[in-house]
Amino acid sequence: MADDQRQRTTVTIYGQHYRIVGKDGPEHVEKVASMVDDKMRELKVSNPYLDVSKLAVLTAVNMCHELVHLQEQSEDGKKEEDK
Amino acid sequence: MADDQRQRTTVTIYGQHYRIVGKDGPEHVEKVASMVDDKMRELKVSNPYLDVSKLAVLTAVNMCHELVHLQEQSEDGKKEEDK
Repeated sequence: MADDQRQRTTVTIYGQHYRIVGKDGPEHVEKVASMVDDKMRELKVSNPYLDVSKLAVLTAVNMCHELVHLQEQSEDGKKEEDK
Repeated sequence: MADDQRQRTTVTIYGQHYRIVGKDGPEHVEKVASMVDDKMRELKVSNPYLDVSKLAVLTAVNMCHELVHLQEQSEDGKKEEDK
């Protein structure tokens, strides 16, 4: 990807700033950052003794779990279409 | 969900153990944990100075980014079907 197509967006997640570089615009990056921030805060409520790194790992696990389920659904949908 | 339907699986992600509780079986949980572990190690290569918590947050951002894209594609697919 050409460097001039890459956009830089700074977001705040769980009180830390991150500069995200990619082809997606600020609106998408801020939506994603806000979802991660929300999930970390939600997990903190049910797991108050977790430190930030474990909280973030479990947030990643949670997101990845949803991703795998959606990928499987999407593949099942394609198989149905092919029938 | 009844408590007896919940399964407990212990996984290792980036050298730390996590006990994941949910309705999914060990195979799914281990796949998800392995994807998160892989992504953390991949991001560490390109960002060697990041600490574990930032690495985990960026992994969550990455997973969430893919999730949002797939959700959008899935919604577009449904809209196409409705036409």
